[in-house]
Amino acid sequence: MNDTTLKFAVVLSGCGVFDGSEIHEATMTMLAIDEAGCDYQCFAPDTWQAKTIDHYTGQATAIAGDDDNRNVLAESARIARGNIKNLKEFNAKEYDAIVFPGGFGAAMNWSNFAIKGSDCELNKEVERAIHDAYENHLVIGAMCIAPVVIAKALAKHKVKVTIGTDKGVGAGITKMGAVFEPKGTLDVCVDEENRVVTTPAYMLAKSIKDIRKGTQNLIDEMLNLLD
Amino acid sequence: MNDTTLKFAVVLSGCGVFDGSEIHEATMTMLAIDEAGCDYQCFAPDTWQAKTIDHYTGQATAIAGDDDNRNVLAESARIARGNIKNLKEFNAKEYDAIVFPGGFGAAMNWSNFAIKGSDCELNKEVERAIHDAYENHLVIGAMCIAPVVIAKALAKHKVKVTIGTDKGVGAGITKMGAVFEPKGTLDVCVDEENRVVTTPAYMLAKSIKDIRKGTQNLIDEMLNLLD
Repeated sequence: MNDTTLKFAVVLSGCGVFDGSEIHEATMTMLAIDEAGCDYQCFAPDTWQAKTIDHYTGQATAIAGDDDNRNVLAESARIARGNIKNLKEFNAKEYDAIVFPGGFGAAMNWSNFAIKGSDCELNKEVERAIHDAYENHLVIGAMCIAPVVIAKALAKHKVKVTIGTDKGVGAGITKMGAVFEPKGTLDVCVDEENRVVTTPAYMLAKSIKDIRKGTQNLIDEMLNLLD
Repeated sequence: MNDTTLKFAVVLSGCGVFDGSEIHEATMTMLAIDEAGCDYQCFAPDTWQAKTIDHYTGQATAIAGDDDNRNVLAESARIARGNIKNLKEFNAKEYDAIVFPGGFGAAMNWSNFAIKGSDCELNKEVERAIHDAYENHLVIGAMCIAPVVIAKALAKHKVKVTIGTDKGVGAGITKMGAVFEPKGTLDVCVDEENRVVTTPAYMLAKSIKDIRKGTQNLIDEMLNLLD
């Protein structure tokens, strides 16, 4: 890495599609950044998961407040091989771009969108990071369900995002005051003015191969805005 | 998928480099198989982790027998998005190839190599799966530290494997009765006679980009043997 290397922050919400970050989306994001010759640093908020889900049975094994519930930062560290920072250390001035992979952690740990929809509240550190990134003109990327968190944080800027074609989630985004753009599996929604780039990923994708292509497309469009 | 589609079993040992499957190695393996137009099914043994490690602090939070220790099958299901089978259901006659990604889970959950080295014992279901695969002439792939498990299970066939260049682990493999071949980061060791293919992955790799290339090389060499 040298001074001209573009630096991405990758924000995680746990480790596993049903209660954290979707693992394929997270690793393919890191791969696309690395292959583009850019640098990345993983971050996650130091907070408790809304729930812990057994991914074999699909059942909740713990909820917030239980002794055996899991911590978002500790679980996210699994995807990052331990090389991760507390999101409160994120300083937008040190980065060119920030990316939010999907997974239910976006709707359960970064926000309570899964329960409250368009009236959701955001985790304070996640909200601070998005505002810091926006104010410092970073390019902001998000995929799968994660764009709802960007839409909520940046609703007053009428940010335009996609989460695929789901009309219910789309209506929630519109109700927040943001703009919903339906898109296909590998497509990317680019809001040039707000420098926000989003793609549906596993909201529509059926295979890890599609996640690979969709995240490459996302990172490519983010790099176009950084040109 | 049709009848001529090659079918790979991918065996996992948990979810996270320090106590389970290395996540980048596992997802890049699934990607390379999918991109090659082949099908895969994930498996993991229904057993308890030797330890649960907090990947942020690096400290053990639970050991075998503790109530809050984790189950290998349930944790592996995170990487597989819930689409995983108990390894006891693995029937080699239904597959063309079987792959073992790395991570400390190979040396802690599939075996006790981390403690006993060349005198290690293997998890019974893992051992059965390897023997079943060998007897049915499947191509067997393994990466990172996972080849020590293949070496132990197939020592009497003098199987040849790599784990990179680590002399200590290499000596352990030799002491088991297998053959150790030192290899570089992206290289693949091919034992044509035994149909065993191995690559160093994170035993040597420094980036997720190298894991991508190394696993592609591994899957390519496995496909060559299946031609």
